[in-house]
Amino acid sequence: MPDPVKMEAAVHAYVAAFEAGSADQVAALYAQDATVEDPIGSPIHKGREAIRAFYAESMKTGAKLKLEGPVRVAGDYAVFPFSVNLNFDGGAKRIDVIDTFRFNDANEVIEMRAFWGPTNMHGF
Amino acid sequence: MPDPVKMEAAVHAYVAAFEAGSADQVAALYAQDATVEDPIGSPIHKGREAIRAFYAESMKTGAKLKLEGPVRVAGDYAVFPFSVNLNFDGGAKRIDVIDTFRFNDANEVIEMRAFWGPTNMHGF
Repeated sequence: MPDPVKMEAAVHAYVAAFEAGSADQVAALYAQDATVEDPIGSPIHKGREAIRAFYAESMKTGAKLKLEGPVRVAGDYAVFPFSVNLNFDGGAKRIDVIDTFRFNDANEVIEMRAFWGPTNMHGF
Repeated sequence: MPDPVKMEAAVHAYVAAFEAGSADQVAALYAQDATVEDPIGSPIHKGREAIRAFYAESMKTGAKLKLEGPVRVAGDYAVFPFSVNLNFDGGAKRIDVIDTFRFNDANEVIEMRAFWGPTNMHGF
């Protein structure tokens, strides 16, 4: 089983990686064969390199993350509420999101799913 | 696909059912063949009657729910952060939880998973 302390630390490293604008730092949190589905229902990015490219693209918006409550740690999952804050098209935008991170025994994220939809987008 | 408005309403009905202390009201939100895993890693309750019994038992603690942020609606999922507040063993206790509700086309919850663990329990 993954280590709850390292799982929670990975969430904070994820937020910090956005602060630094580093897709490499994000990708380093993922297992080599991880999957990312963001948002739910969109095509799944598979493998660390595809995941790195996905984050590099999404970071072009200057998106920063803000935790909006405690990280829930359950079994091999860390689940957390946050907001994505970005400037786009001349104004401040916010998206309310909940991510689920599932970890492998090496404390790497093996599966990420991002839950947000049209009702969670503000200022667009 | 389920209706996003009805999905979000189901979350509020879930909170209200706890306020009323009604396991029947909770069970009515679930599909006949639904599953409940609460918390992640514990035995799964399958079927509306087993689910009703599970909630009847858990409501003996007088647990009330408080939403701690917006409901995220993504595809056939509604996902929401909340706290469970109860009086137990002579004091106020709180558990920070995130639930995922997955809906069928009849806008019934077909799968519920509750994410919380030891680090999310306060006052115990």
